Amino acid sequence: MVSLLDVARAAHVSKMTVSRVLNHPDQVSPEIIADVQQVIAELGYVQNRAGRALANNRHYNIAFILLDDINEIEPYYAHLLMHLTDELRHAGYTLEMRHDRNFDLTNVDGFLVSGARGSDFELLQSLTVPVVIYGTEPGIPSVDIDNKAGTQLATNALLDAGYARLIYLGIDMSEPFAINREVGYRDAMLTAGRTTEIYHLPNDEHAAQAFLADLNLCGNTGIVAATDRLGLGALRAGRSQGLTVPTDLGIVGFDGIYIHQLAELPLTTIQQPLATIAQHMVALLMKQLAGETVTSVYVVPELLHGATTA
Amino acid sequence: MVSLLDVARAAHVSKMTVSRVLNHPDQVSPEIIADVQQVIAELGYVQNRAGRALANNRHYNIAFILLDDINEIEPYYAHLLMHLTDELRHAGYTLEMRHDRNFDLTNVDGFLVSGARGSDFELLQSLTVPVVIYGTEPGIPSVDIDNKAGTQLATNALLDAGYARLIYLGIDMSEPFAINREVGYRDAMLTAGRTTEIYHLPNDEHAAQAFLADLNLCGNTGIVAATDRLGLGALRAGRSQGLTVPTDLGIVGFDGIYIHQLAELPLTTIQQPLATIAQHMVALLMKQLAGETVTSVYVVPELLHGATTA
Repeated sequence: MVSLLDVARAAHVSKMTVSRVLNHPDQVSPEIIADVQQVIAELGYVQNRAGRALANNRHYNIAFILLDDINEIEPYYAHLLMHLTDELRHAGYTLEMRHDRNFDLTNVDGFLVSGARGSDFELLQSLTVPVVIYGTEPGIPSVDIDNKAGTQLATNALLDAGYARLIYLGIDMSEPFAINREVGYRDAMLTAGRTTEIYHLPNDEHAAQAFLADLNLCGNTGIVAATDRLGLGALRAGRSQGLTVPTDLGIVGFDGIYIHQLAELPLTTIQQPLATIAQHMVALLMKQLAGETVTSVYVVPELLHGATTA
Repeated sequence: MVSLLDVARAAHVSKMTVSRVLNHPDQVSPEIIADVQQVIAELGYVQNRAGRALANNRHYNIAFILLDDINEIEPYYAHLLMHLTDELRHAGYTLEMRHDRNFDLTNVDGFLVSGARGSDFELLQSLTVPVVIYGTEPGIPSVDIDNKAGTQLATNALLDAGYARLIYLGIDMSEPFAINREVGYRDAMLTAGRTTEIYHLPNDEHAAQAFLADLNLCGNTGIVAATDRLGLGALRAGRSQGLTVPTDLGIVGFDGIYIHQLAELPLTTIQQPLATIAQHMVALLMKQLAGETVTSVYVVPELLHGATTA
């Protein structure tokens, strides 16, 4: 059995340095990490996690369950996963991927769940280990962005810019995030004494573009889009009708992951802070594992200025 | 300790059905999976993987190491990961996510690696457990698409459509995939007795659009783009110059994951078959674990017809 000391000697570093490479790589230079990992690979070193696990009655492994259909996976999941992997590693845990309703407890201390829908919550509440969901559900520890605060930010930005007409492009779903985003727009409009104008569409840029082509946008209009995909469609509709963005048409999207950058003009958007979300999800799980009671966390998203607002 | 029989009785199904839900969920109806997983959650059932692992000297866990920087993660990684998770689950293994050069063998039987660059290969070759990379490197079992065959397909599609001028938009990297994609274009053009016209750009749609605006495209032109991002930029440049796609300007992109659908007209593209890639990666790893010698696999991608070719 290769020991930590064997690795340290072969890499010409201290045992403390090897330990840092394994558990706190952010405290070590990339060159030293490369050297030590090379030696670990050559010697076939195995950290004695099994011993630590037995001593503490822990697996030091968390399953991340992604319940969305593979054809509907949003690209930001790759980023959320990387952030969760990093956060768990800092906490001394590994992340196991799951992709179906598999709540088998083999080798797992808890669950992080994304994409859960109404029918999943009963099952999640009956789990015998800690769980944290990405989303909102009373009675289940959860981390979510404050969707309402997000669209309030978006609406106020367009109100401040002085557009005469302010439209909300919502998505035709009754999930809490969709409802809360609409409420944020309505509240901000009400506070400003303005009349609301709300439409519901499939979450698809082509659908948004086609719909707005028929609506006859005539300038001096702001659009609060419930997602960047709808914002992207609004941008295309405006340009194909000869409107100048942002002078004639202002647009604020929502999500701020990948799609807003792909637009012909970078979209102004309300950005989901994925690193912060991952931090909170892992922190809530670790607190539960330590026996603490936790309350759900709402993260206020930020307005990311692009080229579709002045 | 809750047994498989306890779960079967509580769910009013056979032990065989519980086993199928755990190991071959594709053979069971969604309703039965929901019922059985509900019971598993309520009873806190734990599969005896530890016993199976001890008996076979296996962990039944594979680490997927994603070496790309978090800011450069392509959205298709979410899909690749889901496919790898599904394939490993069918083989009786779990997938552990890693995001740094962490080749520690704790609880791991082998590695799947993506995003490896030149400096990583020495380390990968010195591993004492099986490894499969997504990419190409002599001496390391790998799965890759046949990039050359892909751009040959793209070039021939545009040649068949009869465009007078046929441009290659490449990316300014010397990685094997970038070189092989260019070689495919060159070979197809040579075979057809046509003169090549090759440019190298950053892999960015804005860069491609700006470059082509200066190039003065004058109709009857086909563009073989090394990536969908470059293809997206070409589409925008053509439309802003008043060219009709695909009559005046034909475009074939490469990758076929997410971006091609977001374009204003769906891009014709060479699609990376991620499910097939995941199947081969897991199969090569399982063969190595069974003591077999393996050879690297090249998967020929397919032309996916969009609206940017006739």
